[in-house]
Amino acid sequence: MRIAILLYNGIAALDAVGPYEVLSRLPGAEVVHVGERRGEVRTCAGTLGLTADAELADVPDPDIIVVPGGRGQTDLMAEGPVHEWLRGADTTSTWTTAVCTGSLILAAAGLLRGRRAASHWLAPGELPALGAVPCEERVVFDGKYVTAAGVSSGIDMALSLAGRIVGDKAAQEIQLMIEYDPQPPYSAGSRVTAPAEAVAALRARSRFAASPQ
Amino acid sequence: MRIAILLYNGIAALDAVGPYEVLSRLPGAEVVHVGERRGEVRTCAGTLGLTADAELADVPDPDIIVVPGGRGQTDLMAEGPVHEWLRGADTTSTWTTAVCTGSLILAAAGLLRGRRAASHWLAPGELPALGAVPCEERVVFDGKYVTAAGVSSGIDMALSLAGRIVGDKAAQEIQLMIEYDPQPPYSAGSRVTAPAEAVAALRARSRFAASPQ
Repeated sequence: MRIAILLYNGIAALDAVGPYEVLSRLPGAEVVHVGERRGEVRTCAGTLGLTADAELADVPDPDIIVVPGGRGQTDLMAEGPVHEWLRGADTTSTWTTAVCTGSLILAAAGLLRGRRAASHWLAPGELPALGAVPCEERVVFDGKYVTAAGVSSGIDMALSLAGRIVGDKAAQEIQLMIEYDPQPPYSAGSRVTAPAEAVAALRARSRFAASPQ
Repeated sequence: MRIAILLYNGIAALDAVGPYEVLSRLPGAEVVHVGERRGEVRTCAGTLGLTADAELADVPDPDIIVVPGGRGQTDLMAEGPVHEWLRGADTTSTWTTAVCTGSLILAAAGLLRGRRAASHWLAPGELPALGAVPCEERVVFDGKYVTAAGVSSGIDMALSLAGRIVGDKAAQEIQLMIEYDPQPPYSAGSRVTAPAEAVAALRARSRFAASPQ
């Protein structure tokens, strides 16, 4: 089972590493990090380098595709090699997935037309113009397309996906191995539960236009 | 505020990237990933490379130290350059932290003598011989020493730490930005809530001797 995780400059590290930490523990998993070029990419903040071990053309037909988000997402909205690779890989993939603003990339490549999709809570307003139906849930399954909300939600997405692939028992072992028993110190993780001031502050700094909600 | 995250071969990626994703968003944060040598390290599974941008000697006095865990932790239990660096950096650090089996490295370096410390749920039995007091909590503060349970717990640790450093309001904004509103599909994240069979299966495969609990 080949799992291709897309890396690019400006990625949010946790978008990629959350799913990686879960999916790499699937029995028989062979994870490969792919990029437009082999070598290092840097995160949004610039202070972490991650290695793309393969070029897009090296991995034409993975079983699972993972598209992380991050500020660099904006560079991948135009037609180009990444879109071509995504469409090609998607023709044979078992699961095509995205985390956070990665769903905007998938949608821009034309893969989410008429599909329900999650994204970062600041970004759902971007999806309709790309043909997708925004869905404010943490993990959204629509056929073989699985999308997750912002950054940290890729862990939940990957565990849900693991359950579909190897069954609940094996997925629960992965959850226990990574001791995913979350105890955030605040209830500020969603725009519904966070203090209104926090929501307003982040909306004001967002690169996305305010969504209608 | 300089934050040094230790990288080494055999690291569990999420141990490092969970805290990175939170702490790199602190106002004024300057994160640097340090290793024994500059360049790439590979994760436990071998399928992800992360870049150490600095050598230990380049970062002698960070404000915050983060020591991740992972299978490669066993290579860092003997006296050597990493222990020397940890002890030196700890003399001036504001916070000295570890995730998962990273606490065993801190303890082996002599920094947790008589301190309460968390670790991966399979590993607490290792701590007493290293002078630390095992504590089965997700995040443990003992003075300036902050330790977290397994792998994913570094996110909770970093958010708690963010609250202490910049206050609840700014920490809540970080939580909202990374949309950390966890919704795991199972309640299998701790040895207390997971199915007994999962606990037994992982204990049987563990590299650590069974702890008395």
